[in-house]
Amino acid sequence: MQQTSSPRKDLLGIEHLPREVIDHLLDRSDHYYELLLSEHPIPQNDLLAGRTVANLFFENSTRTRFSFELAEQRLGGQHISFTSQGTSVSKGESLLDTVKVLEAMKLDAIVVRHSSYGVPGFIAKHVADHVHVINAGDGAHEHPTQALLDAATMRMIMGTLEKKRVAIIGDIRHSRVARSNIWLLQKYGCDITLIGPDTLMARHAAEVFGVKVQREMGNIVHEVDMIIALRVQLERQASALFPTLEEFTSMYGLTAARLAGSKAHLLHPGPVNIGVELDFDAVYGEHSVILRQVKRGVAVRMAVLEWVFS
Amino acid sequence: MQQTSSPRKDLLGIEHLPREVIDHLLDRSDHYYELLLSEHPIPQNDLLAGRTVANLFFENSTRTRFSFELAEQRLGGQHISFTSQGTSVSKGESLLDTVKVLEAMKLDAIVVRHSSYGVPGFIAKHVADHVHVINAGDGAHEHPTQALLDAATMRMIMGTLEKKRVAIIGDIRHSRVARSNIWLLQKYGCDITLIGPDTLMARHAAEVFGVKVQREMGNIVHEVDMIIALRVQLERQASALFPTLEEFTSMYGLTAARLAGSKAHLLHPGPVNIGVELDFDAVYGEHSVILRQVKRGVAVRMAVLEWVFS
Amino acid sequence: MQQTSSPRKDLLGIEHLPREVIDHLLDRSDHYYELLLSEHPIPQNDLLAGRTVANLFFENSTRTRFSFELAEQRLGGQHISFTSQGTSVSKGESLLDTVKVLEAMKLDAIVVRHSSYGVPGFIAKHVADHVHVINAGDGAHEHPTQALLDAATMRMIMGTLEKKRVAIIGDIRHSRVARSNIWLLQKYGCDITLIGPDTLMARHAAEVFGVKVQREMGNIVHEVDMIIALRVQLERQASALFPTLEEFTSMYGLTAARLAGSKAHLLHPGPVNIGVELDFDAVYGEHSVILRQVKRGVAVRMAVLEWVFS
Repeated sequence: MQQTSSPRKDLLGIEHLPREVIDHLLDRSDHYYELLLSEHPIPQNDLLAGRTVANLFFENSTRTRFSFELAEQRLGGQHISFTSQGTSVSKGESLLDTVKVLEAMKLDAIVVRHSSYGVPGFIAKHVADHVHVINAGDGAHEHPTQALLDAATMRMIMGTLEKKRVAIIGDIRHSRVARSNIWLLQKYGCDITLIGPDTLMARHAAEVFGVKVQREMGNIVHEVDMIIALRVQLERQASALFPTLEEFTSMYGLTAARLAGSKAHLLHPGPVNIGVELDFDAVYGEHSVILRQVKRGVAVRMAVLEWVFS
Repeated sequence: MQQTSSPRKDLLGIEHLPREVIDHLLDRSDHYYELLLSEHPIPQNDLLAGRTVANLFFENSTRTRFSFELAEQRLGGQHISFTSQGTSVSKGESLLDTVKVLEAMKLDAIVVRHSSYGVPGFIAKHVADHVHVINAGDGAHEHPTQALLDAATMRMIMGTLEKKRVAIIGDIRHSRVARSNIWLLQKYGCDITLIGPDTLMARHAAEVFGVKVQREMGNIVHEVDMIIALRVQLERQASALFPTLEEFTSMYGLTAARLAGSKAHLLHPGPVNIGVELDFDAVYGEHSVILRQVKRGVAVRMAVLEWVFS
Repeated sequence: MQQTSSPRKDLLGIEHLPREVIDHLLDRSDHYYELLLSEHPIPQNDLLAGRTVANLFFENSTRTRFSFELAEQRLGGQHISFTSQGTSVSKGESLLDTVKVLEAMKLDAIVVRHSSYGVPGFIAKHVADHVHVINAGDGAHEHPTQALLDAATMRMIMGTLEKKRVAIIGDIRHSRVARSNIWLLQKYGCDITLIGPDTLMARHAAEVFGVKVQREMGNIVHEVDMIIALRVQLERQASALFPTLEEFTSMYGLTAARLAGSKAHLLHPGPVNIGVELDFDAVYGEHSVILRQVKRGVAVRMAVLEWVFS
């Protein structure tokens, strides 16, 4: 988060990232998006020639790992990847140990996803100056590349992000996607409403984030420009954060019928639990920009890698 | 399987693949086989330059994954790989979700192995036109690259596949290798006999496939040109499809002694359970072409990748 | 270990490796170390162009796998990697099967780590002449690249390895690092003392290795030039090889205080159990060369790959 205190560029989060940097990343992501849309093979690019990136996924995510690996390859770089298979290994000193080992191997960047808040920041603080750190999701804190791809998708469709009205619906409390999106959209003066049951709402959200908070959907789908639906983490249902999935779906689930007549664009970070937070017709319907979000995934990561190394 | 209804080339199976295509793939596999036999490093090839292939192994197979990854690298392409470690993830909508994500990442081909019949066909039906699909084994349905490498091996040794006599022995019911081989060899007028206990025989095999079926080995090893021994899936033994391994081996196991005097060439898709379907001396003996089959693995996958992209 | 009986070069262990080869590997590792220390991207090197290396980690080690994969990439080679996730697969015939399959795929080298003694030698004996074999650790036998990187680190710091005094402390019995280091350092006339409790000492160590053995630390840290602290394998504690970790640490654990006034350099193969065999201040203190060891990891593997292919 100390982008300004060090000559090295990291992407640790959106909260402290200047708006000019975000504008630049969205512009460059548009550039790479056009290349990826073309029918032709991707032109060879050697921005990362001789560079090696380590992808450390202490929390498994094939989708995000693939998009980083593709971005690294398409910029001419090399990569090594580590995926933790459920077993938890690295905390405290041993995480420091990992950082020192990677640094010593002359790696140029570390992409890290971890279930604990602050791990990318910890790595950035302790790693040598030549190793860039990119946060691929840390606990319920930040997921900056997801927020960037959401913003890039919406900016291209709507022309601007300025002063848009946005609803974020579902499990706000545990969502790093929600936090990164709030911080990004507020830099563009967006008016944000968080919607979900008390048990899934971030504590003191209205005061902490300066947003509106409501428990009921009410008329929200007809009042906003963008709806960000969040993934219900089914594995947490055991801890009874809401009584039944059916009740959650009846209150907060979005269906094509519920969206009828709305002008809002529907986003979701994926993978969708179809039939829970969204139904099939909502995912593939006229409001949905979910597939466009996915198309943005590789382009945004190429833009981020280009930026940290520039 | 709709190779003819789309401009895009996929390899979903052998059943509906025209014989001309098979001839072509065998020819090209001979070409790559010669290159791989040479002592020299493999000449750099850029047929797949700028292309990326995703290898999705929902069912683990280090051997097959390695041969695809090597083929992709040796044609100058890039790849990303996913291996499921026992945990089952993708069914129904979520498999569709995976397909859409990969397509959106501008992947050029998907190589897929899955324990369920029809997954490659499902992907081919739903994926965008620019993404080629290659079946690396689906349930008990097809394993087309295995049948192609078996055929390439035998064609080189015998000069032709035309009207050869073939025995396929063992667990026919659960074998995708058996099905792909039957369909391939019948396109060359081969005379095929399936041999195994009732519990391991495909239902109505004689009618469905137009082959001979017998329960006892009889004199078969002296009557055929090729014997394809199948792998006994030891993990299925629990469900008691035959009384004991010893009884299976005594009835259907091939030993060097049993093969003595036969003119047949012995194939096996690997890995062999030595001491069960084959003994050590049969695997490494004069009838065996098993190591030649393995040598074919990379060459055939190079030929298939070349063809789908041509 | 038959480096002399075959035209092919393997690195199976240190015990039978001539000192001239070790000198050469240390020299070349110094060369690559300088390149890796530089701020510039690593110059493209094509020593392994058209070559493919298989990294077979039957025993998991992200750190060692990464350093080999980086070495292979930085020499312009391609690689495929297999990591066993706890499940044991390959013994006897099936290991032979794996070897034959890899050979048939025209792989040029096999890097192998295995929990059983002798697996690299078994592979070397059975694989075709064009496939180089590199031991990345076999059971409690040898870990030659670790000993080489320890030696390279110490030679650069001290100018020479000749006739140095060395203490190796901790779980000698189960340590391949200890064995490879003993054999290497004895080729330079080093005077070696092994220190640890009886339950963790190699049997008949004094006779077998021609070293000194002692149960107590005594004044050793003030008598030697190098201390190699070994990792306590915490998972073995269950079998009660020593009463409690605290007792081990109080007897053999190295702290900054205990090292005060010593002229010895402190090495550890990593990852360190901080608070067990070493405390934090020892790891990051003035005696420690542990991070320099890690920096050597990739350079030594580049030197080894260069040598086997030369």
